[in-house]
Amino acid sequence: MHEFDGLKEECGLFGIWGHPEASELTYMAMHSLQHRGQQGAGMVSSSGEYLFGARGMGLLTEALSKDQLDSLKPFPHAIGHTRYASSGGSELSNVQPFLFKSHTGDLGLAHNGNLVNAMNLRRALEDQGSIFQTTSDSEVFAHLLRREKGAGEEGLEKRKNRIKKTLKQLKGAFAFMIMHEDSLTVALDDHGVRPLMLGKKDGSHCVASETCAFTAIGADYIRDIEAGELITITDDGIDFDYYTDQTYPNMCSMEYIYFARADSEFRNISTYRIRKELGRALAEEMDVEADIVIGVPDSSLAAAKGFSEAIGIPQEQGLLKNRYVGRTFTEPGQEARERAVRMKLSPVRDIIEGKRLIVIDDSIVRGTTSRFIVKALKQAGAAEVHMGVSSPPLKNPCYYGIDVSTHAEIIASRKSRDEIRDEIGADSLTYLSVDRMHDVYHQFGSKGQCDACFTGNYPIDIEEAILPQEKDLKQKGV
Amino acid sequence: MHEFDGLKEECGLFGIWGHPEASELTYMAMHSLQHRGQQGAGMVSSSGEYLFGARGMGLLTEALSKDQLDSLKPFPHAIGHTRYASSGGSELSNVQPFLFKSHTGDLGLAHNGNLVNAMNLRRALEDQGSIFQTTSDSEVFAHLLRREKGAGEEGLEKRKNRIKKTLKQLKGAFAFMIMHEDSLTVALDDHGVRPLMLGKKDGSHCVASETCAFTAIGADYIRDIEAGELITITDDGIDFDYYTDQTYPNMCSMEYIYFARADSEFRNISTYRIRKELGRALAEEMDVEADIVIGVPDSSLAAAKGFSEAIGIPQEQGLLKNRYVGRTFTEPGQEARERAVRMKLSPVRDIIEGKRLIVIDDSIVRGTTSRFIVKALKQAGAAEVHMGVSSPPLKNPCYYGIDVSTHAEIIASRKSRDEIRDEIGADSLTYLSVDRMHDVYHQFGSKGQCDACFTGNYPIDIEEAILPQEKDLKQKGV
Amino acid sequence: MHEFDGLKEECGLFGIWGHPEASELTYMAMHSLQHRGQQGAGMVSSSGEYLFGARGMGLLTEALSKDQLDSLKPFPHAIGHTRYASSGGSELSNVQPFLFKSHTGDLGLAHNGNLVNAMNLRRALEDQGSIFQTTSDSEVFAHLLRREKGAGEEGLEKRKNRIKKTLKQLKGAFAFMIMHEDSLTVALDDHGVRPLMLGKKDGSHCVASETCAFTAIGADYIRDIEAGELITITDDGIDFDYYTDQTYPNMCSMEYIYFARADSEFRNISTYRIRKELGRALAEEMDVEADIVIGVPDSSLAAAKGFSEAIGIPQEQGLLKNRYVGRTFTEPGQEARERAVRMKLSPVRDIIEGKRLIVIDDSIVRGTTSRFIVKALKQAGAAEVHMGVSSPPLKNPCYYGIDVSTHAEIIASRKSRDEIRDEIGADSLTYLSVDRMHDVYHQFGSKGQCDACFTGNYPIDIEEAILPQEKDLKQKGV
Amino acid sequence: MHEFDGLKEECGLFGIWGHPEASELTYMAMHSLQHRGQQGAGMVSSSGEYLFGARGMGLLTEALSKDQLDSLKPFPHAIGHTRYASSGGSELSNVQPFLFKSHTGDLGLAHNGNLVNAMNLRRALEDQGSIFQTTSDSEVFAHLLRREKGAGEEGLEKRKNRIKKTLKQLKGAFAFMIMHEDSLTVALDDHGVRPLMLGKKDGSHCVASETCAFTAIGADYIRDIEAGELITITDDGIDFDYYTDQTYPNMCSMEYIYFARADSEFRNISTYRIRKELGRALAEEMDVEADIVIGVPDSSLAAAKGFSEAIGIPQEQGLLKNRYVGRTFTEPGQEARERAVRMKLSPVRDIIEGKRLIVIDDSIVRGTTSRFIVKALKQAGAAEVHMGVSSPPLKNPCYYGIDVSTHAEIIASRKSRDEIRDEIGADSLTYLSVDRMHDVYHQFGSKGQCDACFTGNYPIDIEEAILPQEKDLKQKGV
Repeated sequence: MHEFDGLKEECGLFGIWGHPEASELTYMAMHSLQHRGQQGAGMVSSSGEYLFGARGMGLLTEALSKDQLDSLKPFPHAIGHTRYASSGGSELSNVQPFLFKSHTGDLGLAHNGNLVNAMNLRRALEDQGSIFQTTSDSEVFAHLLRREKGAGEEGLEKRKNRIKKTLKQLKGAFAFMIMHEDSLTVALDDHGVRPLMLGKKDGSHCVASETCAFTAIGADYIRDIEAGELITITDDGIDFDYYTDQTYPNMCSMEYIYFARADSEFRNISTYRIRKELGRALAEEMDVEADIVIGVPDSSLAAAKGFSEAIGIPQEQGLLKNRYVGRTFTEPGQEARERAVRMKLSPVRDIIEGKRLIVIDDSIVRGTTSRFIVKALKQAGAAEVHMGVSSPPLKNPCYYGIDVSTHAEIIASRKSRDEIRDEIGADSLTYLSVDRMHDVYHQFGSKGQCDACFTGNYPIDIEEAILPQEKDLKQKGV
Repeated sequence: MHEFDGLKEECGLFGIWGHPEASELTYMAMHSLQHRGQQGAGMVSSSGEYLFGARGMGLLTEALSKDQLDSLKPFPHAIGHTRYASSGGSELSNVQPFLFKSHTGDLGLAHNGNLVNAMNLRRALEDQGSIFQTTSDSEVFAHLLRREKGAGEEGLEKRKNRIKKTLKQLKGAFAFMIMHEDSLTVALDDHGVRPLMLGKKDGSHCVASETCAFTAIGADYIRDIEAGELITITDDGIDFDYYTDQTYPNMCSMEYIYFARADSEFRNISTYRIRKELGRALAEEMDVEADIVIGVPDSSLAAAKGFSEAIGIPQEQGLLKNRYVGRTFTEPGQEARERAVRMKLSPVRDIIEGKRLIVIDDSIVRGTTSRFIVKALKQAGAAEVHMGVSSPPLKNPCYYGIDVSTHAEIIASRKSRDEIRDEIGADSLTYLSVDRMHDVYHQFGSKGQCDACFTGNYPIDIEEAILPQEKDLKQKGV
Repeated sequence: MHEFDGLKEECGLFGIWGHPEASELTYMAMHSLQHRGQQGAGMVSSSGEYLFGARGMGLLTEALSKDQLDSLKPFPHAIGHTRYASSGGSELSNVQPFLFKSHTGDLGLAHNGNLVNAMNLRRALEDQGSIFQTTSDSEVFAHLLRREKGAGEEGLEKRKNRIKKTLKQLKGAFAFMIMHEDSLTVALDDHGVRPLMLGKKDGSHCVASETCAFTAIGADYIRDIEAGELITITDDGIDFDYYTDQTYPNMCSMEYIYFARADSEFRNISTYRIRKELGRALAEEMDVEADIVIGVPDSSLAAAKGFSEAIGIPQEQGLLKNRYVGRTFTEPGQEARERAVRMKLSPVRDIIEGKRLIVIDDSIVRGTTSRFIVKALKQAGAAEVHMGVSSPPLKNPCYYGIDVSTHAEIIASRKSRDEIRDEIGADSLTYLSVDRMHDVYHQFGSKGQCDACFTGNYPIDIEEAILPQEKDLKQKGV
Repeated sequence: MHEFDGLKEECGLFGIWGHPEASELTYMAMHSLQHRGQQGAGMVSSSGEYLFGARGMGLLTEALSKDQLDSLKPFPHAIGHTRYASSGGSELSNVQPFLFKSHTGDLGLAHNGNLVNAMNLRRALEDQGSIFQTTSDSEVFAHLLRREKGAGEEGLEKRKNRIKKTLKQLKGAFAFMIMHEDSLTVALDDHGVRPLMLGKKDGSHCVASETCAFTAIGADYIRDIEAGELITITDDGIDFDYYTDQTYPNMCSMEYIYFARADSEFRNISTYRIRKELGRALAEEMDVEADIVIGVPDSSLAAAKGFSEAIGIPQEQGLLKNRYVGRTFTEPGQEARERAVRMKLSPVRDIIEGKRLIVIDDSIVRGTTSRFIVKALKQAGAAEVHMGVSSPPLKNPCYYGIDVSTHAEIIASRKSRDEIRDEIGADSLTYLSVDRMHDVYHQFGSKGQCDACFTGNYPIDIEEAILPQEKDLKQKGV
């Protein structure tokens, strides 16, 4: 439960080529990916000759009006994007897919991830005379692609080579959907940090950030797209290729732990099962006497279930989540934050009263939500509250597309486990170990997981992405 | 899960007298009661001299703007109302609390329930020269009260007598909050159909439809208000009285089964525990072999938990609910409804595949959602789907404040259990018996429960409430 | 030009019975009456069986959406109202036509004017048990009518008698349109203060506050409705009657001077011609040497034209009005008001420079606009500015439907002509005399004009309408 | 009166450097230029270090919210733009000023006019790798400027040279305001087609499309900016220069005739005086007996005044314009257009009836409004209607920034004077001759006027601007 705790969503992608209901399916798929970004949404459709776009701020239902959707309805190819916007760039112009028009043809672009060398590429492009439309790192790709022998008619093969050359200039995490009037190209970076899935609906190929999008539209889930893959879908079929032969699979660990929907699958395994197993693994490492196990809704219920099964103590719904969006009158500050959490989470008193509780949460970022949860449960009469976290201590920012807080805000980068336990007021605090986490992932067929936020071992060099002041702090050891 | 199945919410009430943060507390409390009505919301505050109001359509956050809330902030007394509006009356003028202004003083009025003799009272009042502002049955009370020796200055005692006389003219279900500039009066009908709770926050008395509102603001829950009670709160304290000494406790059974939030308590027992027990009771009456138990989220998870514990088969999260509001392009009809349900509920394939499932739902109204659930689970690979319903067959409309469908739409009023089982496509279908349901309620201290929607035994005569055409159908035995 | 000078608009009425395009014609007619009220607008239409309404805040185009208009399109009978709202009552609930629903039939009501005994009637009705929906004086009529032997079926004759009896209880100025499902009744008070016109479009009768509404829809203007008339229009034709035989024609003088559109006619004479004649009359009473005559746009251009013709000095467009609505950043105050006027009125420098000007304005209320005009013209180089006002000094508030300022704000109620001249900075100031004004009206066939705002001789007793504090001031001779 | 007649507005510019109230003054000035564009408005302000922008669709009051304005309030330098958008490009992204951000500094850009070689420049830039943000011709300038030795720090002199080189690549009509954080540069094309004025307010320099903007803010009007001028305003003062020494003054004739506000001055002469003189000139060329002269409000009132004076026949307000914006229900078509005009213009019957009229209009484009005016006047009883046009027959489209209709729609490009007279139903029709028009302009100090829309002599080659299909038509002599 990170709504007040500093871990933000990333983006959701969906695309489909050659289906009479392409736009409606895309819209339904985006709805199922809404948990991956609520600040904006957009679609770009191709008629086969031209691209057409629509986008807006807010949740899908606000972002795209019925009129906008109707205008895209006739077209058989579509891509959609749900976006989380970091504070600095919450403008309509940054909402994707981007749609670039030129006399040589249109380009639609949607990106999940983050390019670590975007700033340097952008400066170089500006110095060569480019004018940027947005503050987004994703736009860099469009400029590089246009300059890569940009002009004139070209065959699909020539275009693929151009895209390959452009992708090789990028450093960072990316799942790209690149739409031309006659093709949909998708690419995953050489570390495969962000998820991208291949599916099929009524004979038409589709791609999505998560398989829950396939379930939503009744599509078949074919397979996970791999690090370095470059797939081109046209009216003539699907072409599988790689833009590079040097790949280093390093899928984001937090996708399993927190981001993905419980019914989304990776390598045919549901996140629900992976989370249950993380809970089981935690149970082996946490030695505590208790009466009941409580999962923090919704993302930690599966881990709590696994924990409960492993330890043989019943799981109860001791915390309820209010499904409605609220707000307080109170001026910003500690009091307002507490009221906000209280409006979101409620303890079920007569379940809790007098009981020793194990509370399972999937992760702790700033610690504010955990502190409230412990306080609320104790006020409701809990005898003891033991906190179990089904992931290792989160200590480092992510530079690959997740907007975690800076070092200064991440509690585990500043404090020891005991200090955190005291700060949140729990009777004990246990994290899952990094090794056991990797065990679980290997058990479910992972080829390699990024654990930088836990260990600080960044698989892609982040030097270019760090802001000067952050560097200073780092050198000073903050 | 009745979002596509014909069972609508009713209303939520909250009021507090004499607290420096009365408006903010009311707003937070209303947020926790949002599940009891999403079509409109309003507040009336008293400065001690005058009443001030604000209201709007939609969810709380849309209905009341920051400016409106700020305008009410200074006042120490407030009442709030969240409203479900039946199709015929979804206009702003029907949103409560009503605020009536006159030269003899202002009146604020909020109502949960339904008056069965409202139509006849209204006709009589119109014939005496009254002009009605709304199409709401609740307005009748204000007109009767005004005509009850309406004019001039009056003491609190005189006013209480006037209110008593007025209440005695009403037939039906009502929880009323009646605000004058110097008092808050709350009243519950003589059958006590709708819930009303008394609480205390920092020494100030408050009332609410459910105790979750007390949890939300950190108030203490004192006790349930009883059938026929008339409570007056003023600056001088609280006055307990009854407007009638003939009472027939008949609390609505559906409050426990479906409406109330799981953390709300009745007689100090959480709905969560009651639902678990209903699930246990169902387990005794349902004899089926299966591998896992699945609850339909959210309202049936507790019953599924009780069922699972009783029968010793594990409960899994085999169905996920999308938290976001969606919509489809598809034109209204069967296809659109199916798409809408699919956007809302997703099976977790790798949990379900090849398994024999027991699916617990709290009730079935039209059967459309159940049919989809069974279909989706089977498509996801379920070997068998056995449906267990933790309430008796719902066969009759409610005339006491819940907008269920008409006889024609209620599946169990037309079909046998086996026919329903076939229509929803389940391998078996088991309902809880009426007797076992009452057993559970008695076990938790109930003084009497209305079961009219299951049995057709209406505790309050409904003759005046039935529309002519409905009567015809009834006489024809439809 | 009174946008910053304290003289507010009143209301505009239009109704038509039995035309296939009733709603569209009403809408177009209301657009032509937009100058009579910009704070809200509404329509009520009759299908012959039921009434349907729509209304909103703001200008016509904002107040009524396309969807609302489309919903009224099918109906052959319609009334419309454009409203000016005084500060205290600018709420949607006060926008007319009012639509009252009851089991004995619907009632639509639109009113132009002001009832001086509304407060007393309302108190009495409240004491008899009535609940009021609005703060409008017009609602009193509906309550009285309902109580006038209200119940049951009735023929048209019986209804007419009921309306007559009700109208006799009213004191004040009123032009009423009263719509029942099968009739449109219009009534004018016994002094005929407000204008009301009868017309015909394609064989269907229509009524309007001004004949410009007839021009707008291509209707024929039949005649002015007279003081005390009661006209009933049904499918069977038109019935002419009087609700009283004691009438005292006292048409509002300000309608000619300022309110009516220049192309609107009274007794077949255009306001334009009346205003030109008022300008001519002023010329006889104003003895000043000058080079050019300038009218303050738009309402004073006709008077300036008459003045110029009479005196033989050319009229030039020395002041231009910006047609667009603006606003300033500046905080309220003298500076902001000056900026606001400057954004609205611009002198044409090279016409004015070095010239002696006669500036004609139709009236002066607070004097703020006049002061700005003189200042701006002098800054633009005018050698002399002589102000001529084509009406007598306005000294008293109106209680018959025009929202003029209180005594304290009306400059001529506090100051002599010379003091006003000095305050506005003019080189001379001349008002038209009351006698000459009446001469002009008589010349154009007037049967009697209310001149209370100039003379203080109120033709309808205003005792009941005056607020206590105003009375005090009056007794003290303020 | 061209609201229904095919002649659209162009754009309005205002900028001011170094004034504590820069934003408010800009806003007020834009309000006075609102007649030059109602589809969108924007502002860019400089803090001295960075640029900040705000823009929106619609009229100024809708386009810029109070919050947006407040955010710009602190900054001492501002430019503003009111925009008319042709049908193809009515998107927010096309609203100016444009604001381009890059690591070498920000650029604000506002343009009035049209570049005839924009399409070719754009194609070439795209082929060099540029990506365009808008469909506006104005953006070309920004790309060219950036590529003109774009990178790195630069002094003001270097930047001026870069701007000069860029401007020399442009062909067409332009008044540019170019804002950098430390300078405001304004440039007028070598033909000086569009007006641009220099002013001073409280010691700070300002520029505007028309002097009415100076009047609105109380600024002094210094002089008209000349063809080819390049003026740079910084904190150090103002620098006067030319970007080219080959200039061909060809000011747009329609500015005097129709576009400019009557109080705006050119070479210290008001448009009002020029228009009066055009009316006088027409009187010499029009030999008709009549009783009264009527000007079509508002733009033709001055010409009518001049005509009336010259011919000695009185001018009357025989046509009134409704100041409010309306709309009809009627479906698009001839009927709807007629209703729309009728809602806008009303004849004053009792002025017109039985009279022989001379109606003065400033120009005729499609003829639809003229036809309605003649029809309405005759219906109101006019004995004869003689139409006088205070400009020559308008026969050709404009490629320099005015959106007139295509050849096919311009009535005088297809029909003779007699045919037009018959089509609009007038008793006679007289146009001003081209020679007499030029006489008037010379008399008021003009150095050269573009008369291409009358004569087809385009001073700037339009070959690159003409669309292929238009060329075809031209070659076929259509």
